[in-house]
Amino acid sequence: MAKIIIGVMGPGTCTEETRNLAYALGEAIASEGWVTLSGGRNTGVMQAVSRGARQAGGLTLGILPAEDRRQMSEYVDIPIVSGMGSARNNINVLTPDVVVACGLGAGTVSEIALAMKADKPVILLSVEKEAYRFFQKIDTRGVLMRADKVEEVISLIHRRLNVKKN
Amino acid sequence: MAKIIIGVMGPGTCTEETRNLAYALGEAIASEGWVTLSGGRNTGVMQAVSRGARQAGGLTLGILPAEDRRQMSEYVDIPIVSGMGSARNNINVLTPDVVVACGLGAGTVSEIALAMKADKPVILLSVEKEAYRFFQKIDTRGVLMRADKVEEVISLIHRRLNVKKN
Amino acid sequence: MAKIIIGVMGPGTCTEETRNLAYALGEAIASEGWVTLSGGRNTGVMQAVSRGARQAGGLTLGILPAEDRRQMSEYVDIPIVSGMGSARNNINVLTPDVVVACGLGAGTVSEIALAMKADKPVILLSVEKEAYRFFQKIDTRGVLMRADKVEEVISLIHRRLNVKKN
Amino acid sequence: MAKIIIGVMGPGTCTEETRNLAYALGEAIASEGWVTLSGGRNTGVMQAVSRGARQAGGLTLGILPAEDRRQMSEYVDIPIVSGMGSARNNINVLTPDVVVACGLGAGTVSEIALAMKADKPVILLSVEKEAYRFFQKIDTRGVLMRADKVEEVISLIHRRLNVKKN
Repeated sequence: MAKIIIGVMGPGTCTEETRNLAYALGEAIASEGWVTLSGGRNTGVMQAVSRGARQAGGLTLGILPAEDRRQMSEYVDIPIVSGMGSARNNINVLTPDVVVACGLGAGTVSEIALAMKADKPVILLSVEKEAYRFFQKIDTRGVLMRADKVEEVISLIHRRLNVKKN
Repeated sequence: MAKIIIGVMGPGTCTEETRNLAYALGEAIASEGWVTLSGGRNTGVMQAVSRGARQAGGLTLGILPAEDRRQMSEYVDIPIVSGMGSARNNINVLTPDVVVACGLGAGTVSEIALAMKADKPVILLSVEKEAYRFFQKIDTRGVLMRADKVEEVISLIHRRLNVKKN
Repeated sequence: MAKIIIGVMGPGTCTEETRNLAYALGEAIASEGWVTLSGGRNTGVMQAVSRGARQAGGLTLGILPAEDRRQMSEYVDIPIVSGMGSARNNINVLTPDVVVACGLGAGTVSEIALAMKADKPVILLSVEKEAYRFFQKIDTRGVLMRADKVEEVISLIHRRLNVKKN
Repeated sequence: MAKIIIGVMGPGTCTEETRNLAYALGEAIASEGWVTLSGGRNTGVMQAVSRGARQAGGLTLGILPAEDRRQMSEYVDIPIVSGMGSARNNINVLTPDVVVACGLGAGTVSEIALAMKADKPVILLSVEKEAYRFFQKIDTRGVLMRADKVEEVISLIHRRLNVKKN
């Protein structure tokens, strides 16, 4: 059976707070024995979540936008070289069992929307009320969830994976 | 020199009001001699904008998500068969000179965000204040514009195209 | 109804003979009132076929591999900016009604093979016997054709389009 | 540092001999501690190489063409859901350190050609003379290698990886 894969989406440029949250999220995902998927670059949330997951002994996937590994995070174990720029955002959301958004850049917003379009469960972590409301309006299939802390993310994922099994 | 291409993004399921707006937008784009690009399917904004443009004598492009032409709008002159599902949304925004969003589904939101990511001018037509504010927050490059009427869209595009020329 | 689109595939670097053949092919396609699709760049077969088609009054599409229009042929009317490198080769073969290969680079070989995979009629123009035999062996669906002159290509296309209609 | 990834390309429909070769190749790759990448489906070379690698304790990646995991091999540990059909063949060759072709279907031929286009080392395993000669003609960058047995493949890869390190 395939491993459980959790996709963490977030901007390449972000605050230290968001970076710390992403690091903790990576640690928590790895502690559950799940694979961490990110956009794979050596910056922002992608770098932080891969570092957190790796340092907690987890396996890390990075779906790179470029045609080579030049901007890859050194904490990525398995780089997927897509060579298709931001079109790879769709792979980022089709691949994991659950998508978590941590911070909101333009790329992240596209990924949340693509996840909704693909009927994929997506958890917004520590997002502002207005942003959550905005996404709720376009969530016609009821895939959107919200969490304020990393532990909540983990328990939401557990619930989802159980639904899927039964 | 390449023709001027205006991309119109909008949901496959929408209100009659949005459909009428898309139709009028297609007509107006065609009247300027510009090519109309859409997602190419035979439903919602894609269908309406292609119909409006065709009936005003314009040329219509459709970037289809599927691997064949089965769901193509009969008002599309040139179907591009991408075979890549929603990953084609990135082509939808990289290809035109200017992107216009007409209505807001999950796919459309992803396209607005991808346009921002790619530094492409994007006009939100007749969008609610909260949605506009939401996108403003992630518009770090200043590509976002807003219009309430089709004529405003056309004059915003004219201004943009002049900037580009000079 | 959608326009008839003929895809012409060929290397960016080629002999003058191949370039002349591509130019004549573009002219012939345009004279039939068909749209010419190519890889869109300003070099080799892509440039020559677009120039031939444009100068005979035809409409030219270019499916660009890059994220912008920088390397676009000036003879392309409608550039599709795919931003996905050689993955766009699949769009090159899914989009046209018939694919014609003119010259054989690595990219062209990938396109002939992808056309076969997609069950798309593909004509090898002025190709060596060994190359034709090679492709015949993997042509499990019988989509492969061969021509020595531009006029033969045109009459093969006519035959195919009639089959499709009936 | 990223793990070493070996891509094995081959048809979904093949002879038992090719299937056995793919199985042995998967075993050998896994025994070296390398990750095995394939097209991920539950048939032909993809299925056999994933099964061989898994049963020798290796990690298996599958780059799926579809939008979901429905046709995934049960021997794939990490399915990448590309949702882009045969356009994913380009990811198949950009991602690994070395590409090995085992059997020749239309998809495989496209992958060998895309590998050449991308300057990626590619080994043809147990291929007929004429096919090898055909590819040699388009190998302008000297990335093509040939092997008759699995052990030769492994030693060719070792040589390549050393070149890369130094």
